[in-house]
Amino acid sequence: MTGLGISTSSQSDDCLFCRLAREGDHVAKADGFVAIRDINPRADTHLLVLPERHLDTFRDIGALSGEESKRLLGFVAETARAAGLDDYRVLVNVGSGAGQAVFHLHVHVLGGELHGVPA
Amino acid sequence: MTGLGISTSSQSDDCLFCRLAREGDHVAKADGFVAIRDINPRADTHLLVLPERHLDTFRDIGALSGEESKRLLGFVAETARAAGLDDYRVLVNVGSGAGQAVFHLHVHVLGGELHGVPA
Repeated sequence: MTGLGISTSSQSDDCLFCRLAREGDHVAKADGFVAIRDINPRADTHLLVLPERHLDTFRDIGALSGEESKRLLGFVAETARAAGLDDYRVLVNVGSGAGQAVFHLHVHVLGGELHGVPA
Repeated sequence: MTGLGISTSSQSDDCLFCRLAREGDHVAKADGFVAIRDINPRADTHLLVLPERHLDTFRDIGALSGEESKRLLGFVAETARAAGLDDYRVLVNVGSGAGQAVFHLHVHVLGGELHGVPA
């Protein structure tokens, strides 16, 4: 993709969310995971939880260890709590046919009124 | 679900989804988790993944061990794959204000066209 002729099987050099996981404006951070605001919010509160390591989609979730899986789930709940949300939706769009727009696994955390289905 | 007159207390004896985890018509099953069809489908394919152990909501997700967390996530992906879904949505409604109708943690797996926001 870069034209450098270097194999980037994880695509991390080119991946928007890999970059935002490293350098973004993080509203929360935990070991291996960050939370950012969605730039196109579809709810009153719309955050995205990203793993720092690159996985294309939720189909690859088995690549996470038990401890990573537990940290991901706990961090989603903690991110919502820290944002002041008691009631919220947790959504993962898997594949372009289900509205996944960036192919780096991300978990939508949606609080308040929905303004459409998140992509 | 409230129209069924079923208590949504956390007591597992009274919990509809504790009973369905034990006795329901399971479309898939793994160690500690089952998948059933939603009786009020909001998508062409609408499955629910339930832990056999009772947790009221996703807020309690920290009660799962690392291995349980990994099995839950893997089973969600496997349930979708086994249902023939490549692209799908994974949704958890947390709390009544976000459409949670039964207070036993459940994960919606939604494939094809959506017919409204799942409750």
